[in-house]
Order: sequence, then C-alpha cells, then structure tokens
Amino acid sequence: MSGFGLDYDVQATDGAARRGRLTTAHGVVNTPAFMTVGTAGTVKGLTTDQVKDSGAEIILGNTYHLMLRPGAERVAALGGLHKFMNWPGPILTDSGGFQVMSLEELRKITEEGVTFRSHLDGTPHNLTPERAMEIQELLDADITMALDECTPFPATEKEARESMERSMRWAARCKEAFTRRPGYGLFGIVQGSVYPELRHRSAEALKEIGFDGYAVGGLAVGEGQEAMFEVLDATVPHLPAQRPRYLMGVGKPADIVGAVKRGIDMFDCVLPTRSGRTGQAFTRRATLNILNARHRDDARPLDPDCPCPTCSDYSRAYLHHLFKAKEMLGPILLTRHNLHYYQQIMAGLREAIEAGRLEDFVADFERQAAEGDIPAL
Amino acid sequence: MSGFGLDYDVQATDGAARRGRLTTAHGVVNTPAFMTVGTAGTVKGLTTDQVKDSGAEIILGNTYHLMLRPGAERVAALGGLHKFMNWPGPILTDSGGFQVMSLEELRKITEEGVTFRSHLDGTPHNLTPERAMEIQELLDADITMALDECTPFPATEKEARESMERSMRWAARCKEAFTRRPGYGLFGIVQGSVYPELRHRSAEALKEIGFDGYAVGGLAVGEGQEAMFEVLDATVPHLPAQRPRYLMGVGKPADIVGAVKRGIDMFDCVLPTRSGRTGQAFTRRATLNILNARHRDDARPLDPDCPCPTCSDYSRAYLHHLFKAKEMLGPILLTRHNLHYYQQIMAGLREAIEAGRLEDFVADFERQAAEGDIPAL
Repeated sequence: MSGFGLDYDVQATDGAARRGRLTTAHGVVNTPAFMTVGTAGTVKGLTTDQVKDSGAEIILGNTYHLMLRPGAERVAALGGLHKFMNWPGPILTDSGGFQVMSLEELRKITEEGVTFRSHLDGTPHNLTPERAMEIQELLDADITMALDECTPFPATEKEARESMERSMRWAARCKEAFTRRPGYGLFGIVQGSVYPELRHRSAEALKEIGFDGYAVGGLAVGEGQEAMFEVLDATVPHLPAQRPRYLMGVGKPADIVGAVKRGIDMFDCVLPTRSGRTGQAFTRRATLNILNARHRDDARPLDPDCPCPTCSDYSRAYLHHLFKAKEMLGPILLTRHNLHYYQQIMAGLREAIEAGRLEDFVADFERQAAEGDIPAL
Repeated sequence: MSGFGLDYDVQATDGAARRGRLTTAHGVVNTPAFMTVGTAGTVKGLTTDQVKDSGAEIILGNTYHLMLRPGAERVAALGGLHKFMNWPGPILTDSGGFQVMSLEELRKITEEGVTFRSHLDGTPHNLTPERAMEIQELLDADITMALDECTPFPATEKEARESMERSMRWAARCKEAFTRRPGYGLFGIVQGSVYPELRHRSAEALKEIGFDGYAVGGLAVGEGQEAMFEVLDATVPHLPAQRPRYLMGVGKPADIVGAVKRGIDMFDCVLPTRSGRTGQAFTRRATLNILNARHRDDARPLDPDCPCPTCSDYSRAYLHHLFKAKEMLGPILLTRHNLHYYQQIMAGLREAIEAGRLEDFVADFERQAAEGDIPAL
C-alpha cells in the first residue's frame, strides 16, 4: 500500500488510455472497469452469482437509498453491505449527494451540509461531509466517495464556481473525517460544470488535499457527448497519473469507449440494468427494443456474437413473449445480457490497451455500431 | 414402453404410498413428484437453471395462457415449448379447461366444447377435446391432459353427475384424437365432486377408455383437506396400480404428505411460487411472512435447516429489506427457497417409502410443523 489506502498499478498505456489494477480490501478491480449499479443492496433482478458471472468485479451501492432503508447502522449490525447482500467483492458507495440534490423541493443546502426529507416517509435527515463518511464506513465500502454538490446543468460560470468551491471545502472535510484503513480508499470529485478553468482549478484543489482516486462528477446531466468529452480533455491531464480516475454516471457504450481513450479508468451507470428492465437491449450492432413486433417470430438470439447465457439459451421471440406477458424473467434475462455486453466491452478495452491496439478496437467498435441490427428474417 | 406411451415403474410401496419412475421423451421423473408451475412459458422470476437446481424434474405449462400468447402454432414453429423456454426436461401441460371454466362471464360450455373470449383482448376462441389435444401436441408436452370440466364447488349430486359424465365423453374424444408417440402420454381426469359413487364411476369410465396416467381433478377448490382426503380414499383404490396418479392443483405441504400416504404420485401447485412472490415462506416449522417487522434485524436464514441457496447466503433481515423496498430479488429468493423446500419434502417422501419408513417421516414432518417458527431474537 503506497501510503494510500488503495494500491493502484498502471500496467500498460495506449495513448491516454490506461490498463490498471486496483487492489481493495475485498479484491482486485481490473481497469478500465464498469461498476454495476446495485442501488438498494441489490442489482435489480439478479442474484450476486449472476452479477459475478457477467464479469463484474466491483459494484456500486447508493448511500442515499441505503441510509434511508434499511439504514446504515442496521447494515453495519448485520455485518456490512458485503455480507448483507452476499457480494464478497469490492464495493464503491456514492456519497448520497447526487440523489439528495435531485430531491429539489425536499432539500436545503447550506455550508454545513444538506438537510432533506425522505422520499419514502417524509422524515427529516441530515447529510454532511462528516456523516457521509460515517455512513459509508458503516456500510463498509471499499471505496468511499466525498460528499459534493452535483452542480445543476446548465449553470452560469458564477453558479458553477460557487458550487465547485463549496464542494472543494466539503472534500477537505471528507478527507479529515475519513478513517484511513488498508484496502479502503476515499475518492474526491472534480466539479466545475462545462467550464475548463473551473475543472482545472477543482482538480488542483483535490490534488492539494490528496485522495486515493479522482472522480469527474457533474456530467451525463444533459450536456451531450461532445461537451462531456471536452470537459474530460480539460480535466484528465490535471489528474495524478498514478491514481484511478472515475467518470461518474456514464454511460452509453460509445461514451465509455471515448472516455477510456481520454484516460478514464472507472465507470458506473444504470443504463444496462434500467434499460434491460424496460426491454432495451444493447448489442454490438444496435440498441433494440425487444417489444417491437418484428422480434415476435425470430428464433435468433439478441446478438449472434454474444456468448452470454441469454444469447446462448433464448430467442428474441421468447424474450419478446416474456416482455409482452410482463413476466419477471424478461427484465432478468435482458439485464443479464446488457451487463455481459458492457463487461465484454470493458474486457475488450483492457486487452486492446495491453496490446497497444486501442485504435483498432475503437475502429471495430464504431464499424459494428454503424452496421445496425441483423436484418429481419 | 409397455404398450403405453409412458413407462411407469413402481419400485417400492409403503402402505398405499408408492415410489416410482416415470419415463418420458425428455427424461425421467421420480415419484412422488412435485411439478413446478411455469404458466406462460416461465417459472415466474427464475431461470430454468435455478428451477432445475431446486430439484425439479418436471414442470407444468398452462395451455390456456400459451394458446393465447404466444400461441401454440408459434411455439411449434419455434421448436416446441422445451426449446422455447430452455427447459430440456419433461413438461406436462394442462388442457386449458380449468382456466377457461374460471372465465365465467366470458365462456360458454356445450357438448362440443367451450367457446370463450380471451382475457387479454376479448378475441373469441374455441376449445374442444380435439383442439386441446392438437394444442398440447404443438407445444410438445410430454404429458397431455384430457380436456375436462372442472366441476364448480359446491355442486349438487345431479350437477356433479352431469358434469362428470360430459367430462367422460370428452375424455373418450381426447383419447381418440391424441397422437400416440413413444415417451408421450395422455392422462385422464377423474371428476365427481365430493360424491364417492360419482368418483368411483368416473374412475371406472376412464379405465375403460385407457390412459397413460390418471389424474384426480376438481379438488383444492374450497372443499377443505378433510373432504379432499375422503375423495382420495374413495377414488385411488379404483385407479390402476401400474399407472401414475396425479392430484391436480395440490397443495400445501401437509396436503401433499397426506395425499402421498393415500397413493398419489404427482402434484402441481402455484403455492410455492405465488406465495414466494408475496413474501410468504414455507419452512419445516412454520409458514412465515417475511414482511413482518420481527424479521427486520434478524441475521438468521429463513430456515436454519435448509440447504437452499437463499438460506445459505441471505438473512431474514435482507429478505425483509428486499420486500419492503419492492426489489425483484425478494420474490426471486423466496420463490427459490419455497421450491427447494417443496422438493426437499418430495425427496424425503421418496426416501421414506423406499426405506419403508413413511410413518416415521410423517410423524417427524408433523412434529416439526407443530413447533412453530424459531423463536424471535
């Protein structure tokens, strides 16, 4: 442990892209990594065996949801989140800030922190940098995220600066409150909206405080892929090379590929799970809606090139039937496929970086995506 | 194949109870057997691997649901129900009669068959003995059930007789229309409500026609366990000893144990799956509602003596949390447990009959059930 709580070993680079190994108290995460979202102590619809089988090495838990139900103290009394949900591998928890900020009518932000009312029962709660650290320690997260304010989009330069500066003051309080333990780490979060100078200043402020990893926050909030990549171009060069970089809440496969090219190591997003529940499948060639009638008699799998259990064992016709009949197995099987597909992309990126062939990988990825779905029968 | 489509080998008996092996085109079913209900081409919430892992050797599909959606001809074009739903083992399909009769306002019964309107879209449909055979053949069911009228309960002796007699005429038409194939079989269904003489006459009528197996229908419709057992006592002795006997739609664990003692070989019921989805768990000692607040902080499994994946890996507190949060994984894990528990009972019954110790097994079963749930912490 290099003086930090988390070892991070960059094993290969290809341009700005990095192939790394992050070592936590509950195991190793190979990067670039996609973290499967398990909001309320469960990846919706899947057993943890199925999550692991998809290739996931680390999952994300949401502090906001868990602090309200079942409660961080209860999870701690039951042995921590890993044991509670039967996931022995690494877990990252967010700070709760993002969800609390989204409450709008129900929350109030001050320098001290955020007060809010639970969306479940209206009870008042308080989230400060110190309490965010305490909750994530109670949950036993391998990676703790600093409490920040996710700056609304769009924001004026002045709004973005004031918001970012408060987040930096909170980041320092988080560092102070965080209990250092081997294999456990704290990540700071760069803010600054779409303003390159603010992003730069935020990165410098976080480096000054010193974190185990650096996240880029406040993106994937409606700014579009081009603006997002511009922010990454203005931010990533200012982050320490030897620490992991995490782009929060991103994204579509093409967003992830483009961000890896720009030096991002970690991602999380609800897209593969949430889309899977509503009938949307991501494949190499297209994003398709299984409820479309053209799949009704199609004996072929979602993606003929996918080795996942859904594509190995089930036809589009069957998946279409399950969604039409509102059967739980439909969301389950589509979520499994989407998660496998995302992890296949990550594995492909890691291999390509190791081999120094990232450009070829990206070209293949874009060529396949341009082909569109396999022709109807 | 003993001149029948299905081989059935009674390997041991203990009193009236039998330990048998039923050989179908898609594999062997050890009896007494519990058939997991997979209504619309899926055991709700579970992958077929999970169903198999529970110990299930045979599942049941519902003709009514499948004929309406996705349609029997479509399933046939997609390779049959086994391939469609990725269940390579034996499948029994019901005739559709039970569900059609339940439509009440939407159906009309004549000597020819039943006309009804789909509960999905109101389209008119027709179910005759001949069409019921055709549909089940299209689905590729290993075991086809004759179309019968499930006599409403209560019914007068006259109503029950007329209904039973029509079912017997339909049974003869089913036998005529059924395509004999090695490894595929047709079961007749005894009716006659709670009237012993009608049950006796129905059994004799079916034997005269000749079937691969004999089901007892029209029970578990509100008559109570005592009346059900009386009907079995009046019926089972009139069924052929060398053919399997199937008690339709039954039941609670104690119903199954009592029916096996009376010579029944096969069962199906939605209880373990439907109850699992609503938070009810069956255990050796009690039936418990996981939503009850007393489970909120309980780190113990549902059933400390159960080797199923749910009891091995998850606490009551976690299951309680999942149900409170309305997470899909709650119903999934509870359904898995319930199915494992049902199959554990069946395995215990089979072993006990082989060993000539069925009385001991039943005594143990009743003693445990009387103990009640493990004491609260």
